[in-house]
Amino acid sequence: MIKTAIKTKAYAATAHGEELKPLEIQRREPGPSDVLINIKFCGVCHSDVHQIKDEWSNSKYPMVPGHEIVGIVDRVGDRVSKFKAGDRVGVGCMVDSCRECDSCKNDLEQYCEKRMVLTYNDIELDDKTPTLGGYSEIITVDEHFVVRIPENLPLDKAAPLLCAGITTYSPLVHWGAGPGKSVAIVGLGGLGHMAVKLAHALGAEVTVISRSYNKKADAEAMGAKHYVATSDFEAAEKAQNKFDLIINTVSSAADMNTYLGMLKRDGTMVLVGAPSDELPIQAFSIIPHRKSLSGSTIGGIRETQEMLDFCSKHDITSDIEVIPIHVINDAYERLLKSDVRYRFVIEIDSLK
Amino acid sequence: MIKTAIKTKAYAATAHGEELKPLEIQRREPGPSDVLINIKFCGVCHSDVHQIKDEWSNSKYPMVPGHEIVGIVDRVGDRVSKFKAGDRVGVGCMVDSCRECDSCKNDLEQYCEKRMVLTYNDIELDDKTPTLGGYSEIITVDEHFVVRIPENLPLDKAAPLLCAGITTYSPLVHWGAGPGKSVAIVGLGGLGHMAVKLAHALGAEVTVISRSYNKKADAEAMGAKHYVATSDFEAAEKAQNKFDLIINTVSSAADMNTYLGMLKRDGTMVLVGAPSDELPIQAFSIIPHRKSLSGSTIGGIRETQEMLDFCSKHDITSDIEVIPIHVINDAYERLLKSDVRYRFVIEIDSLK
Repeated sequence: MIKTAIKTKAYAATAHGEELKPLEIQRREPGPSDVLINIKFCGVCHSDVHQIKDEWSNSKYPMVPGHEIVGIVDRVGDRVSKFKAGDRVGVGCMVDSCRECDSCKNDLEQYCEKRMVLTYNDIELDDKTPTLGGYSEIITVDEHFVVRIPENLPLDKAAPLLCAGITTYSPLVHWGAGPGKSVAIVGLGGLGHMAVKLAHALGAEVTVISRSYNKKADAEAMGAKHYVATSDFEAAEKAQNKFDLIINTVSSAADMNTYLGMLKRDGTMVLVGAPSDELPIQAFSIIPHRKSLSGSTIGGIRETQEMLDFCSKHDITSDIEVIPIHVINDAYERLLKSDVRYRFVIEIDSLK
Repeated sequence: MIKTAIKTKAYAATAHGEELKPLEIQRREPGPSDVLINIKFCGVCHSDVHQIKDEWSNSKYPMVPGHEIVGIVDRVGDRVSKFKAGDRVGVGCMVDSCRECDSCKNDLEQYCEKRMVLTYNDIELDDKTPTLGGYSEIITVDEHFVVRIPENLPLDKAAPLLCAGITTYSPLVHWGAGPGKSVAIVGLGGLGHMAVKLAHALGAEVTVISRSYNKKADAEAMGAKHYVATSDFEAAEKAQNKFDLIINTVSSAADMNTYLGMLKRDGTMVLVGAPSDELPIQAFSIIPHRKSLSGSTIGGIRETQEMLDFCSKHDITSDIEVIPIHVINDAYERLLKSDVRYRFVIEIDSLK
């Protein structure tokens, strides 16, 4: 299939070990079911750094990162029914899936049995062209994978909802976070701070588990009722058998058995960060009280829209620091030092 | 509290590294809620060997192993209402719990928040005396922890139901094994062969996962529809994303990520064997399809009786080799070589 191409500006890593720099890329002219979006903001996710550095051993270059994309619809294809020019929209971590398997038919495109197509560092299903992410001026996406940003959410603060928001909302809802449930969030970063706000709004009693007491005031302001610093041995000991659900947002394999010890009978710890090291789990951490270690990744498109509407209703957005794109490499360095409260968001106008 | 003691014969390990040999021990005279049981048969569980060898680093000597106990009630205390002399009864892995916590009140004594008292290698809650297991002539147990063996189940073949049976029945039921569900059992040993029979009777489609094809005919005779030998790389590859539930009965930490790869979306692998080594779990084994690794141990007393009644209805018992007690040390050696199909059961009359 020959598609007309549109040239656009982007930031890309052109090879392993390279920093991001300006690159001209091409987007396809919208097909019948496509939406062409003028990108306004793009959040900076930890997985952007993982993949730029090829830490998951599957990086493809040139790579344009970015999967927390918000913008305004420029124009749409003939068969598009959900969106029109001028709409405020978002695109998250995926831009396609098979649409036919059991997972896709059940609105769980993120668990597509063929494969979901990631927004960047992936290959399109049909024409096998590489996917390029949101650190760019425009993007063309099938309307099925585009969601609507509610009017009361500022675009910049809404951008991180597309990954950090849905990645934490989905397991919170799937594992029943709500009134009467005790939920702990490990790590107060980009994902963690969204998890705290969402779990609190869902009605759960929220505890933040972090290394130090540095973020205690922030955690409480976001809705956490309790705070456990793992460096405080006594406090950590008191947290044994306390939680129905733990959402673990950190990208480290450390302390897994300590956290599992904090679960109640029948409790579950869900990994949403992806440590590249093996997790040294002790059988006796899960056998005696029928505990579970589970994984979860983003959420389906229907659930992503549901999450955005939930955030609209509860006035939830991300705590962000807006940056121009030319400081992105410095922002990555700061991100690795947890020196951001709590998400960098790139202002795409700075690309022009 | 002073209790009258009754002397009885047993087999015990008197110190770490010692083989089992005859030892005279004492049992308490039945208190008001106690049942005194003449033991007829006692199954030999892999955990007997783990604990004799102190592989879980908590062994207490002298140790009388045995927690698959069946026998006939000799006499009962004043307040006992469930049993009378002559009844066919069984005792499994626990003989007491706090009876007051949320778990105990919900018939999940095995997850008692204070602690369950194990049938051997443990300490009684009240008088702090050591518990001694079923490799002995008699045992005194509170009636709450005694179950009834249905009339149609032979006592010798029923003995392994008290641990191997309930240890596999409980997770099968908890995680919904039944019609329309695809269930795999890893390891065809004492626990595994019970898991196959029970999962099949519950209506699930059963696959056995074993190292070689040696036990294929046995597995099929027990109700397995499929068989995967992990040594057959191609067969193992074909089993990717196949199972709703895996019950892992092996005491080895190996191949965990291979098994997790065989789960469908939202599938769970439950550990019922207890490897002493850390399990090297990859985050990417559970994140992409929302999979879970869980643990489970035995079952509550109500559920143990339910399992026995289920076995009665479906005519399920263990495949056993009955042995006299003086060959127990050789039996342990054979057990470690998987040279038993599928459970040793000690005829306690051989002690007299």
